[in-house]
Amino acid sequence: MIKKIAHVGIATRSIAVTAEFYKHLGLELDSIEVIQDQKVKVAIMEAGDSAIELIEPTEENSHIQRFIDDRGEGIHHITLEVENLEERLQFLSEKNIKLIDEKPRPGAEGSLIAFVHPDSTGGVLIELVQPASGESS
Amino acid sequence: MIKKIAHVGIATRSIAVTAEFYKHLGLELDSIEVIQDQKVKVAIMEAGDSAIELIEPTEENSHIQRFIDDRGEGIHHITLEVENLEERLQFLSEKNIKLIDEKPRPGAEGSLIAFVHPDSTGGVLIELVQPASGESS
Repeated sequence: MIKKIAHVGIATRSIAVTAEFYKHLGLELDSIEVIQDQKVKVAIMEAGDSAIELIEPTEENSHIQRFIDDRGEGIHHITLEVENLEERLQFLSEKNIKLIDEKPRPGAEGSLIAFVHPDSTGGVLIELVQPASGESS
Repeated sequence: MIKKIAHVGIATRSIAVTAEFYKHLGLELDSIEVIQDQKVKVAIMEAGDSAIELIEPTEENSHIQRFIDDRGEGIHHITLEVENLEERLQFLSEKNIKLIDEKPRPGAEGSLIAFVHPDSTGGVLIELVQPASGESS
C-alpha cells in the first residue's frame, strides 16, 4: 500500500531560476544529478518526509522539453512509495488500470519504479517507487 | 520554513470515479466536504504524513470547472505547510514573488492559507498553509 508521497516532480526550463523561489521558502537543493539516458538534470529539495524534484531538459528532444513545449512549466508527476511494486503492478493490471510500465524497472539509488498512465488516474502521471531494501526514498 | 508537503490537489470531474483508482493503491477517502463559496466538493486521502486532495466542481461556473475545461483533469496545486504564514508572505513580497493572496485568509479547520502565483514558482500553483495552533494539517 502507499506509504507516502515520495516526491512531486516539476518540469522547469531552468533549475537555477526555479530553485530561487523555493529557496525563499527555505527549501535547499540537496542534490543535482544528470540522467543521461533521459536527457534531464534532476534536483531534489527535501520537504519534511517528502521532496520536490525539479526536472530540467538537457536536450531539445528530451521528453521533458516536449512536456514544457506542450503544457508549459509545471507539475509533471507525483511519485508514491509502495512496499512491493511488482505485486502492486500485478494487482493494478488485474483491475484494468493502464500501466506505462508493466514491470518494475531500475530507478535512482537502487530503487524500482513504474509509471501509471494518466488515463487511469484522473489525468495525473503517477510514478510508483519501491526504495532499495531497507531504505525509504 | 516549509515543514512538509501538506497535500497535492487534483482537479477531477468525479471524485467517485477517480477515488476508485486510488483505492487500488490502498488510499481511502478520509473525508468529503462541500465548500459552498468555492463551488467545489473536496475529498481527502491521507498518504503518510501528507495527503492527496480530490477537488470536484459542483457548478459550471466553479473555478475548478474552468481549470478542467482549459487543461483537463489533473494536478491543480501543491500545498506546503509553513510555520508563520503572515511573516512568510511579507518576506516573499519583499523578494518580488507574485502573490495571489497578499494576506493570510481562513482555510479549512481553523487554518490560514494563501496562494502564490504560478508566474513566480515555475508554473506551479502553490498554496501555503499554516495549520490551526498546535495542529499539523
